[in-house]
Amino acid sequence: MRIIDIILKKRNGEKLSREEIDYMVREYTLGNIPDYQVSALLMAIYFQKLDDEETAYLTESMMNSGEIVDLRHVEGIKVDKHSTGGVGDKTTIALAPIVAACGVPVAKMSGRGLGHTGGTLDKLESIPGFNVNLTKDEFINQVNEIKVSVIGQTSNLVPADKKLYALRDVTATVDNISLIASSIMSKKLASGADAIVLDVKTGSGAFMQDINDSFELAKEMVQIGTNMNRETVAIISDMDQPLGYAVGNCLEIKEAIDVLLGRGPEDLKELCIVVGAHMILLAKKADDLGQAKAMIEEAISSGKAFSVFKEFVERQGGDITFIDNIELLPKAKEIYALRATKRGYIHKIHANTVGLSAMILGAGREHKDSIIDLSVGIVLNKKCGDFVTEGDVLAYIHSNNSILTEQSATKMITAFKIEQNIPEIRPLIFGTVTKESMG
Amino acid sequence: MRIIDIILKKRNGEKLSREEIDYMVREYTLGNIPDYQVSALLMAIYFQKLDDEETAYLTESMMNSGEIVDLRHVEGIKVDKHSTGGVGDKTTIALAPIVAACGVPVAKMSGRGLGHTGGTLDKLESIPGFNVNLTKDEFINQVNEIKVSVIGQTSNLVPADKKLYALRDVTATVDNISLIASSIMSKKLASGADAIVLDVKTGSGAFMQDINDSFELAKEMVQIGTNMNRETVAIISDMDQPLGYAVGNCLEIKEAIDVLLGRGPEDLKELCIVVGAHMILLAKKADDLGQAKAMIEEAISSGKAFSVFKEFVERQGGDITFIDNIELLPKAKEIYALRATKRGYIHKIHANTVGLSAMILGAGREHKDSIIDLSVGIVLNKKCGDFVTEGDVLAYIHSNNSILTEQSATKMITAFKIEQNIPEIRPLIFGTVTKESMG
Repeated sequence: MRIIDIILKKRNGEKLSREEIDYMVREYTLGNIPDYQVSALLMAIYFQKLDDEETAYLTESMMNSGEIVDLRHVEGIKVDKHSTGGVGDKTTIALAPIVAACGVPVAKMSGRGLGHTGGTLDKLESIPGFNVNLTKDEFINQVNEIKVSVIGQTSNLVPADKKLYALRDVTATVDNISLIASSIMSKKLASGADAIVLDVKTGSGAFMQDINDSFELAKEMVQIGTNMNRETVAIISDMDQPLGYAVGNCLEIKEAIDVLLGRGPEDLKELCIVVGAHMILLAKKADDLGQAKAMIEEAISSGKAFSVFKEFVERQGGDITFIDNIELLPKAKEIYALRATKRGYIHKIHANTVGLSAMILGAGREHKDSIIDLSVGIVLNKKCGDFVTEGDVLAYIHSNNSILTEQSATKMITAFKIEQNIPEIRPLIFGTVTKESMG
Repeated sequence: MRIIDIILKKRNGEKLSREEIDYMVREYTLGNIPDYQVSALLMAIYFQKLDDEETAYLTESMMNSGEIVDLRHVEGIKVDKHSTGGVGDKTTIALAPIVAACGVPVAKMSGRGLGHTGGTLDKLESIPGFNVNLTKDEFINQVNEIKVSVIGQTSNLVPADKKLYALRDVTATVDNISLIASSIMSKKLASGADAIVLDVKTGSGAFMQDINDSFELAKEMVQIGTNMNRETVAIISDMDQPLGYAVGNCLEIKEAIDVLLGRGPEDLKELCIVVGAHMILLAKKADDLGQAKAMIEEAISSGKAFSVFKEFVERQGGDITFIDNIELLPKAKEIYALRATKRGYIHKIHANTVGLSAMILGAGREHKDSIIDLSVGIVLNKKCGDFVTEGDVLAYIHSNNSILTEQSATKMITAFKIEQNIPEIRPLIFGTVTKESMG
């Protein structure tokens, strides 16, 4: 088998066989096929696409390229949750203890990645002492005992995806539904989950800005999960404005704690309830979505979810003094109030621009080795649909450097679109894709 | 400027600017842009194509990537000739002294390349003593004194093309008209010619097997030449069966000498006359094609062309004893007669298969460092349209190794298609493309 023939075949619009895809993934991961041939193949795939079968083969080959996590010793149906990422998405931090409180085992491995703010691991690490590097036994024991643990991904999880993603990133071959779906699903499948709930974001702050593309990606991933005998459900949720108010690692931890305490932003809370209810259902801890949602409301209002969270933090070495009194958590030196310069309704808060404004402050990683400032970020004071007059505070910029504050503010003000008429408000949830809904 | 943005732009079907193409070519040649980004761009170009302007920019950038040969000190209008390559194409060897004898200065730089047989340089080197490595002054002086010299390309001629071609070859991005045209034309332009005659081959032994593709390539190259103020004419000629009878380095030299002596195969002679007449016309040594053709006939019949050839060989160190008595040239150890196994008309002699049969014997280069056996090759005994009976000799295999003879014969017999009915004969010249013919 020769890679040049595989490139030629795909370039000419022919279907690749399981053996050809296996060969490419295996030999590329081993370093036997050079980047320049794979990037040509990826570009050919961008134009000629992969069909459902080829996408399934690719996902499976990638899944098998490294370690497959064995969660057999975790009791119950393990349901994993994945978000395609967005600005202010701290859902996992609140959601994991909530569903754990409802009896669903949450054995979650998280990545770090690049982005406007850190990932779930970085956010959890803004709690002093929190340790994301447990041994596998510690991880499994903790899930069996308190139903929840979140740790870093094993370094050998889907090495093929690490290489392929890095290559796609620099060759303009990221945005292909099959490549995105196989990248996400290979990692979920290798992480050992029995069932998967996907939160596919859509809008200006999401990977998929177009609603139809988001549905297409959701369908592709549900298809892959189904083919691999993992019950898979996808929610399509809004990411046109940031989720909640806070964008920044420590700031987001505080907001997640708010949700666990029964407060917190409406949108974040609603998303936790919808995604959580599907997780509970897939774990067979409820008979229908209505019952599952009621269980979540009860877990929050009873304080059970918050107490599971504290147990979770404590078991992973975190200092719960900071949880009992969140004012003790790391704070930025200055808080700058960004004010409206005109009167009207907020039509848009461009999520990506908010993310970039947080990034300028040091909240995220530009390069693999960038050091994150966990205390900085943006806290919105208004959201879409709110009415403001001149001088009203639109957002607070939490910063440790006044030059960066100014740069961030200059960027941030462009995120807001204020108009005279009352805007139409986008829904939080655009739809749900299940095996059944696809027919 | 970032290469990733250039890839994205072309991927999305947008037009690249002169600056973007310049940047890519320059930085890639310097090694500042990695292969894997350029191969992705090449595949995007394969799908989205380059328009005439982008192709012109690419050609110019490539031309400027290395040395540009200065032929100002060669007197007269320098007309270069280029063939897109085929099996048994020894045209240059006969043509150069013919047009030189008609007063056209031929300052030709030739490459070696990979192929079924060697290139023009290898063929000339089968004349003992022949030296293709002259200094630039020796080269220019020789052209001024005897009107003809053929030497190896300067190693720094269009380095961008060397890198790009090697990359295209392993990433299934060779067959794009713009990339082929810019590769050829950048080298012709950098070689310093004032005008160019292109011999675009079509058929089973050519790069372009389809006649429409061949015309498209011819048009693209004439367009580029015209844009760069070089008068350019393209002939589209047949390469469905080999040109002439001989395929192999030394064997082809003998056939070229035959043409110079007024003998030789009809097709080779006709091609020399047609291509040569266009060269004479572009050099303004005749008023019309008819006059130019008559000049060629006269140069051959008078013996002038042959005597210029001998002078040319002698000036470049070749031993003309071998020219006066071609039987002294290197010979293979054995000659095997390949015979017809059925009676009928020859419909096809698949040129590429003949080339491969010669390659098996060692006539060509498989790798850059392969050593060519100059004496071996194939000499056809019949051509398309000929009638044969069982046992008639179809071709002679000149070989230095009886195992290879057998392998070559097994391959070679499959090149012939013999049928009962009288075949339609393809023309030698399918057409001519000039600036005027494109309107």
